[in-house]
Amino acid sequence: MSNSTIRILGIDPGLRNTGWGIIEQTGNRLTYVASGVVKPPIKDELPERLLALYNGIKDLIAEHRPDEAAVEETFVNAGPRSALLLGQARGVCLMTPASCGLRVGEYSANKVKKSVVGAGHADKDQVQMMIKILLPTANFKSADAADALAIAITHAHHRGTLNQRASA
Amino acid sequence: MSNSTIRILGIDPGLRNTGWGIIEQTGNRLTYVASGVVKPPIKDELPERLLALYNGIKDLIAEHRPDEAAVEETFVNAGPRSALLLGQARGVCLMTPASCGLRVGEYSANKVKKSVVGAGHADKDQVQMMIKILLPTANFKSADAADALAIAITHAHHRGTLNQRASA
Repeated sequence: MSNSTIRILGIDPGLRNTGWGIIEQTGNRLTYVASGVVKPPIKDELPERLLALYNGIKDLIAEHRPDEAAVEETFVNAGPRSALLLGQARGVCLMTPASCGLRVGEYSANKVKKSVVGAGHADKDQVQMMIKILLPTANFKSADAADALAIAITHAHHRGTLNQRASA
Repeated sequence: MSNSTIRILGIDPGLRNTGWGIIEQTGNRLTYVASGVVKPPIKDELPERLLALYNGIKDLIAEHRPDEAAVEETFVNAGPRSALLLGQARGVCLMTPASCGLRVGEYSANKVKKSVVGAGHADKDQVQMMIKILLPTANFKSADAADALAIAITHAHHRGTLNQRASA
């Protein structure tokens, strides 16, 4: 693994709250950069809400200049109507970093929990506790931002494998 | 209703085939302009496929300069996994015209069939036959493009109501 520094954007998609978190990876060392939540105005019509999500992600990419992105593979135990709504937000969250030239990894919720806590069925509190250990300077104000940082950490652990696949 | 000409883009979202159709409305008169299908490369990863969909829609908006857009409200009788996949394509189809400054209407499949055929449970053949009657110069090569033209026609019939709501 090279010692150059890679900046990774993690995204936890949601139509009301899309969490985001950015870390830097230098060799095996991870450093917290920034995190937050994009909140499209819930009173707007759906196309405008999705546009606010697109603009929010584009702006934070312009500000923080990540090199790669990672998005959680949504867990669909909800009904088809909820899955459709979430899918709409997720489509924008996958497309926007790609439109900025970033490679985008996808990771299941289980893989994220295994990467961060070591167990696929960890709860939200365990994930947040581990993020505070793995990224001591992390200053996240919401569970969605913490989840996004967990996704970025997962990508840091697995992006080598992705690179091998891409160059295979 | 004013007699100025409005150009309407209809979109029938799908990850493999997104149909599109453009018509002009002058008073009560409708005229066919163009139609086609955006086909994101199915071998690419999901973020790249969604980006191809975004770019395809953006390009056709740049070429044909519609004033307003309309997207079918997806009928979700499929499982949550299919709904999620379709939702991702639909999110991009709703967001892209909004990002180009177009107002975007949403119409249920039943409303589209009622608008075009007069019955909410018309089949695809009836819809295509009526489009050939309503838009005699229409030259569509696929069912997805025909569906998109049906959505544009529906918007032409209902956009007055939307305008009243918007200015209320």
